[in-house]
Amino acid sequence: MIVDKASPLFGDLGGMHNVYINAVGLPALKKGGPYPDKTMFLTDLHDFTVSDGSYVEGARKALAIMLKDAKKYSSTGGWGFQAFEGGDPKKPLVTDAAKQCFACHQPKKEQDYVYSTYIP
Amino acid sequence: MIVDKASPLFGDLGGMHNVYINAVGLPALKKGGPYPDKTMFLTDLHDFTVSDGSYVEGARKALAIMLKDAKKYSSTGGWGFQAFEGGDPKKPLVTDAAKQCFACHQPKKEQDYVYSTYIP
Repeated sequence: MIVDKASPLFGDLGGMHNVYINAVGLPALKKGGPYPDKTMFLTDLHDFTVSDGSYVEGARKALAIMLKDAKKYSSTGGWGFQAFEGGDPKKPLVTDAAKQCFACHQPKKEQDYVYSTYIP
Repeated sequence: MIVDKASPLFGDLGGMHNVYINAVGLPALKKGGPYPDKTMFLTDLHDFTVSDGSYVEGARKALAIMLKDAKKYSSTGGWGFQAFEGGDPKKPLVTDAAKQCFACHQPKKEQDYVYSTYIP
């Protein structure tokens, strides 16, 4: 997915989103959730440039993860959220997951708070 | 990469290009080529929709491969080209690799005829 300048989300989430899931969660993704504990989503978020009608991937902006642990993260739908600036583990971006992450995931409750859907 | 409607390539190559390379070719990709025999690129080409400024991946349009064999494919820069409609191995699309594929790759001779570049 690319969140382009025309999107209201561009300021916070603009870029090319390459989304991965681990093997624990894959069967649940195919069903649209719910997800078992230890499911992990990874979003590899990159800048992009537009040249002659083509959107070309640029440098990494951040790595973002969602990790399922229903008990540990019960206050944020069972998901732990974190993101790292430029993918640098020394630069975490999330200090308040409820406010920075879960607030916008809450509308996707029927998909266990996950926006991604399986695309064969 | 997304080739959008504004691109002159949209008719032939429109869509979201997810490009993969095998381990044989990866070191060469990092240097920008040239590539050793048995390098394989795979492009998983998908449709997309645009919704509120976000480009969202859709169904698979085709799988396309480039396989390096300098001797076998000497007439097309050392690359074998094939693509499969919808990713179906029973539906090959390339009958004349020189005309359908290599003609447009030829300008990238300095990168061993490969458009992709390594994006960390």
